[in-house]
Amino acid sequence: MAGPINHVEGGTITTAKGFKAGGTYVGIKTFTEDKMDMGLLLSDTTCAAAGVFTKSALVSPSVTVNRETMASGGPIRGLVVNSGIANAGVGEQGYTDAKEMAAVAAAGLGVKPEEVFVFSTGVIGVELPMTLIKQGVEQIELSDNGGNSLARAMMTTDTHTKEAAVTVNLGGKEINISGVAKGSGMIHPNMATMLCFVATDAAVEQNFLRSILPDIADSTLNMLDIDGDTSTNDSLVVLANGAAGNAAISAGSADADTFRDALMELLIQLTRQLAQDGEGATTLIVAKVEGAKNIADARLAAKTITSSLLVKSAVYGADPNWGRLIMALGRSGAEMVESKIDLYINGVCIMESGRPVPFARDAVVALMRGDEVTFGVNLNLSNGQATAWGCDLTEEYVVINSAYTT
Amino acid sequence: MAGPINHVEGGTITTAKGFKAGGTYVGIKTFTEDKMDMGLLLSDTTCAAAGVFTKSALVSPSVTVNRETMASGGPIRGLVVNSGIANAGVGEQGYTDAKEMAAVAAAGLGVKPEEVFVFSTGVIGVELPMTLIKQGVEQIELSDNGGNSLARAMMTTDTHTKEAAVTVNLGGKEINISGVAKGSGMIHPNMATMLCFVATDAAVEQNFLRSILPDIADSTLNMLDIDGDTSTNDSLVVLANGAAGNAAISAGSADADTFRDALMELLIQLTRQLAQDGEGATTLIVAKVEGAKNIADARLAAKTITSSLLVKSAVYGADPNWGRLIMALGRSGAEMVESKIDLYINGVCIMESGRPVPFARDAVVALMRGDEVTFGVNLNLSNGQATAWGCDLTEEYVVINSAYTT
Repeated sequence: MAGPINHVEGGTITTAKGFKAGGTYVGIKTFTEDKMDMGLLLSDTTCAAAGVFTKSALVSPSVTVNRETMASGGPIRGLVVNSGIANAGVGEQGYTDAKEMAAVAAAGLGVKPEEVFVFSTGVIGVELPMTLIKQGVEQIELSDNGGNSLARAMMTTDTHTKEAAVTVNLGGKEINISGVAKGSGMIHPNMATMLCFVATDAAVEQNFLRSILPDIADSTLNMLDIDGDTSTNDSLVVLANGAAGNAAISAGSADADTFRDALMELLIQLTRQLAQDGEGATTLIVAKVEGAKNIADARLAAKTITSSLLVKSAVYGADPNWGRLIMALGRSGAEMVESKIDLYINGVCIMESGRPVPFARDAVVALMRGDEVTFGVNLNLSNGQATAWGCDLTEEYVVINSAYTT
Repeated sequence: MAGPINHVEGGTITTAKGFKAGGTYVGIKTFTEDKMDMGLLLSDTTCAAAGVFTKSALVSPSVTVNRETMASGGPIRGLVVNSGIANAGVGEQGYTDAKEMAAVAAAGLGVKPEEVFVFSTGVIGVELPMTLIKQGVEQIELSDNGGNSLARAMMTTDTHTKEAAVTVNLGGKEINISGVAKGSGMIHPNMATMLCFVATDAAVEQNFLRSILPDIADSTLNMLDIDGDTSTNDSLVVLANGAAGNAAISAGSADADTFRDALMELLIQLTRQLAQDGEGATTLIVAKVEGAKNIADARLAAKTITSSLLVKSAVYGADPNWGRLIMALGRSGAEMVESKIDLYINGVCIMESGRPVPFARDAVVALMRGDEVTFGVNLNLSNGQATAWGCDLTEEYVVINSAYTT
């Protein structure tokens, strides 16, 4: 039977067996010591692949190329990524460059162009420097523990890498699900300048993987908000190479739910890391809504709380100004009845059945000064529940974003 | 025939004939010199009335009382307003207090309770101090030029009053449309902690006034965004007392369109003043979208630009980072084709047919350092057009909102 889902200490995308990664600095980003701006991931064998991409009407041609690769349905061997330039807003040249970047990476990895996903993140409106991209592919050395280099190569305004891995026993085989992500600003429910790569050594049937990924993304990365903005490049891809030797997981397999839960858990870890590292952030905000009419309403209510500038500013000031929670809930679009609402801040009930509860203000202020603030909401209508993640709004966010290109 | 619409220099809500107003300080807000926190407006005669209120699911009982007053359809004589406390999030007591506040004001004004609208703005979750409210009604002295006092009495984090008046000749009679507004934070398309009172001495048939107001609000106040948050108390009311002696305007009247245009112009002026005084703002942002598939798409695209934190931060930094405009347009939900989009910053073309146009960066940066930045977008699809107003995001916004109640 399926065992518990365990976190792997120090886990990264190469924790999954049969995956190699690496990164290098080629000069696309301004140089700072220890910074990288190009990375590669390679599976020793072919992978089943699934992906979820930005819902923006204006997308990077790199996303277009990946959508075509996904649609062809063929096996995948790896991916190439650069940071510093988004390959978006550059007219037709962007598509040509994305195709060439995949081809150059494939040649370097010794696989076919259609077996490689291609990602870019950074400034919009600047063409990719293809000479540097080619140089990068030659420079990168892949290794079995190169996940951290790949994670570093993806970073833009991120202050640290996002890496995690979980392991679970499926039918007697220990399988790993591991990933890296990047994203710090321009982050909102529809995935944002957010790139997330997940590798698993589990054998997973591709159609099953593709069938479960959208809902998992909707419960994790799409419940993340840093600043309400959605990028042209957001992407989540999952590659499964089967190196663990488990019986392939498909819809209805005994282990299907466990695999799904483990993938969800990995993405929750990466979502939390992304929220914690929001531009200028000092505090992780978690909004847990239960008792909503349905999941859609619960998601709306939870996301509206974490994306409200007034709530985010109040958290920064450790200000238990719950009127702003009421304001956010009211405008969320979720169905609610004021006289049924219970509110909690870090477990302390501050409103019950729509009426303020006297609470020890100083104690709540002290709780809010911690690294994580949790807002609990019970709408007491039905069974819909959801969790959203975000971060506080600080002066530093404004400083970072008022001088990004100039 | 109808003459041109003229702005009245120094105009305020009592510019319209037959209206008196006044304000006082009773102690609801923390005292600072020159601050007021209660105000009254009275028409010498009965008025036709129209109103638009917050779309939040959780509203102040004051809004509920006004909706009931509106629904009864009877004539209106005036209104009472307090700032400092929002009369929201206080359970059933809020409704009782709103009714009592209307009754107390009516007694003071010598009219009936059902002829008085009642408004509150300020902190959510605190009960109204009814003793102070009663004291305020006794204290206030009404005058023919008391509009500025009323405007001051409505202010919360506003740094200055919002007042305007326009005048137009309708069928040989000079009529005035004048108003006051307040609102600085918690402001977003669905009307926000925004209160706007409009008085006109034009004779206007009530059903006609009510029929035109929602669309005018959608084109003006509902195109305003300061911080994406919508308050529990947002309200716009228009009172028309007929003191100008014009032939009553109704649907199909010769002057109906001119009156509509004049009311729109007044609300544009107040909307601009609200945007300029957004919390912490240094720059007015105007987004003009044309060539959209329809008006709804144009509104979506324009509002998404003015509400994007990344665009707002870029304006603060005078950073012509037009990639953020592309990002905002892409996620707006409006239909668009990348290769057809033209973009302008203060009239300078920076993107044509989806391709970057080389522009004199230093010149655009200099333009963006002015008091007003206009983003022009032509989607070149059809005839939909809309304008949205907003302001830049500064460190000061965060400072103001991280320490509002504590």
